[in-house]
Amino acid sequence: MISVKEAEDILGRSLLPIHLETVPLDKSLGRVLAEEIVADRDFPPYNRVTMDGIAIKGAYYEKGQAVYKIEKVVAAGEPRYAIKDESSCVEIMTGAVLPDGLDTVIRYEDVTIENGEATILVDNVKTGQNVHGKGTDRTKGEPIVPKGRVMGAAEIAIGATVGKTHLKVHKLPSVVIVSTGDELVPIDQTPEPHQIRASNALMLQAAVQSLGLPVAIRHLTDDHEAVIKGVRQLLNDFEILVFIGGSSRGKYDYIPETLEENGVSRYFYKVKQRPGKPFWFGAREAGNQFVFALPGNPVSCFLCMEKYFKPWLKNSLGVVEHKEMATLKEDIHFKPPLTYFAPVRLEYKGGQYTAIPMSGQGSGDLANLADADAFMQLPEDQQTFPTGSTYPIIKYRHAL
Amino acid sequence: MISVKEAEDILGRSLLPIHLETVPLDKSLGRVLAEEIVADRDFPPYNRVTMDGIAIKGAYYEKGQAVYKIEKVVAAGEPRYAIKDESSCVEIMTGAVLPDGLDTVIRYEDVTIENGEATILVDNVKTGQNVHGKGTDRTKGEPIVPKGRVMGAAEIAIGATVGKTHLKVHKLPSVVIVSTGDELVPIDQTPEPHQIRASNALMLQAAVQSLGLPVAIRHLTDDHEAVIKGVRQLLNDFEILVFIGGSSRGKYDYIPETLEENGVSRYFYKVKQRPGKPFWFGAREAGNQFVFALPGNPVSCFLCMEKYFKPWLKNSLGVVEHKEMATLKEDIHFKPPLTYFAPVRLEYKGGQYTAIPMSGQGSGDLANLADADAFMQLPEDQQTFPTGSTYPIIKYRHAL
Repeated sequence: MISVKEAEDILGRSLLPIHLETVPLDKSLGRVLAEEIVADRDFPPYNRVTMDGIAIKGAYYEKGQAVYKIEKVVAAGEPRYAIKDESSCVEIMTGAVLPDGLDTVIRYEDVTIENGEATILVDNVKTGQNVHGKGTDRTKGEPIVPKGRVMGAAEIAIGATVGKTHLKVHKLPSVVIVSTGDELVPIDQTPEPHQIRASNALMLQAAVQSLGLPVAIRHLTDDHEAVIKGVRQLLNDFEILVFIGGSSRGKYDYIPETLEENGVSRYFYKVKQRPGKPFWFGAREAGNQFVFALPGNPVSCFLCMEKYFKPWLKNSLGVVEHKEMATLKEDIHFKPPLTYFAPVRLEYKGGQYTAIPMSGQGSGDLANLADADAFMQLPEDQQTFPTGSTYPIIKYRHAL
Repeated sequence: MISVKEAEDILGRSLLPIHLETVPLDKSLGRVLAEEIVADRDFPPYNRVTMDGIAIKGAYYEKGQAVYKIEKVVAAGEPRYAIKDESSCVEIMTGAVLPDGLDTVIRYEDVTIENGEATILVDNVKTGQNVHGKGTDRTKGEPIVPKGRVMGAAEIAIGATVGKTHLKVHKLPSVVIVSTGDELVPIDQTPEPHQIRASNALMLQAAVQSLGLPVAIRHLTDDHEAVIKGVRQLLNDFEILVFIGGSSRGKYDYIPETLEENGVSRYFYKVKQRPGKPFWFGAREAGNQFVFALPGNPVSCFLCMEKYFKPWLKNSLGVVEHKEMATLKEDIHFKPPLTYFAPVRLEYKGGQYTAIPMSGQGSGDLANLADADAFMQLPEDQQTFPTGSTYPIIKYRHAL
């Protein structure tokens, strides 16, 4: 039996090797970038007008000229124009190329236009204003988005701007969720009193999908031969195997021994925690296949998924997230020498989370998960966790 | 021109009407629940064993009996057994139904088993231990998950447990992103100096997709007839129209007038903010179609999307999120009487975010978005925002 810290360390050292693939930009949302996105030209690529109005040469304004003949109307998207008479102006739109010979833009609100002439009404015009100078953001060849970044809306916009129709990203591994146990019935059936519906597999499927990964679901019955055959096939087909149940020491739990017979080494079994103690983790020799066997109890399974499996999956894809914290609003007492993951409700005020412990604390209480927002991680070397103290939390509430 | 607060208030009062639809449970991730999920039977449905070990009647242990004849081995998934001799025991597995006549489970680690008998090695057995009593979590008919909850992995697990193969959820509206302007070229083409690639539409598409909504993309050229025809068709086909560019006062911006001619009332135009001032919002008479016209400047467009459009879309689906806060690590000065959305990098320590202002603060600086993690919302009635003060932030970094 190992500590939570040891389990985290082992998982952190046992990551899936990174493989790359190329995807279209508009399919890259949520993917981890494996190349730099680089400026393909200067940004902006020309002196860009940032207000609708008129463009002038500032030197004339500084000499006191208020009225300017309108030489042309320039829209965004027109090729660059060269002004013929620098003491004239053009009407010009946001996004347009500033004409050669001009350097300053005055917005429509600050001019009147009559009989082909614009009159400036304000006295605070500064030469160069309302112009976004060529190359001031990035010069051609400069990196804009670094490797390892998760592609979001901003990164996709930048990729589009520099013409990256395709991107190199980290390849997604193949994941299978494997439920075990004859007490499970499909969710569309009415279980006998001694049976339960197979909820854990759907739960894990949702969790993996929420990370954007495809995922398969399989079921193994409590039959030794079926387990042996099934495990071999799964190791053949998938990189990440997540078994549910089948890791505890009961007589009908053949999974760990079958895995070891098929070259999967046990990295750890049992973690000093509640819920989620009977948690098994291992890998195949080559280190390119990993196996999780999570406890069958729904809350234990959920905790191991949120605390270990999802962060491991993110780490394997190159994403490390900071741990969030919350401050206890009521005392918690917990005697066993185990790390206790207490279900808590969260309140957010003034930039910080406060955690309110839930009353029902049985690890089997699936309904409790619906009332809580997070687990609070309380260390094994304390028995009392006083109001006002701060501990890490694992938020799991889905917010669209 | 209205304030940020007024814009938020108008948007908050102008939500899409909620329609319902039924989806399969395993497709419900991220959807907003429109019914209660109710316990279909007691939870647990029987006295459930929570440890692998032996089950006894505690009264015999209390009378001093340490050795128990093993009457049977009971696995999870077997129908309920009734013990024949209450002074005997059964071997029993986690998840199994506790046999009638027994009430207490002792884990394997605390017993030895030899010659068909189990001997208890510990002296701290408590009657009722390691049994999760029938109906202690929820009784049949009790609600477990409330209406309005966004379906996450926990809610899906609960739905599966109670046999909800299908769920009533809020229907997703149809969204179209409409880019405008002749200066735009497709992203796979090399733009002339006066042209830019159409990045905003892909950015908005990614943002809408990240909320789980399907989204279409269209383009309108700067041609009055094309705009009139296009707007009519779009109003025919979609509930939410998001125009990019085309809302400012330039001569080539026909969108707002065409919208108004087609029965879309303007709710506001221009918000006292930087970036993102020329932001237009309206609705069609019946109040079941909404139109956003976001500024064409990429950073302005991005800000309006993160600050207004995404929260409005979430609100319309029934999801309200708390505003996150951060504390400034350096002073910011901003003189204009506008709400300033400052790009900041975030650090997380001890349960709170610290915000580091970015140097390049031009609203046109798309590259800046890649370096920052969030916008910090600084109120219009101040010019100096001192180190150590706390303001709302809009986090936009995608974390898988």
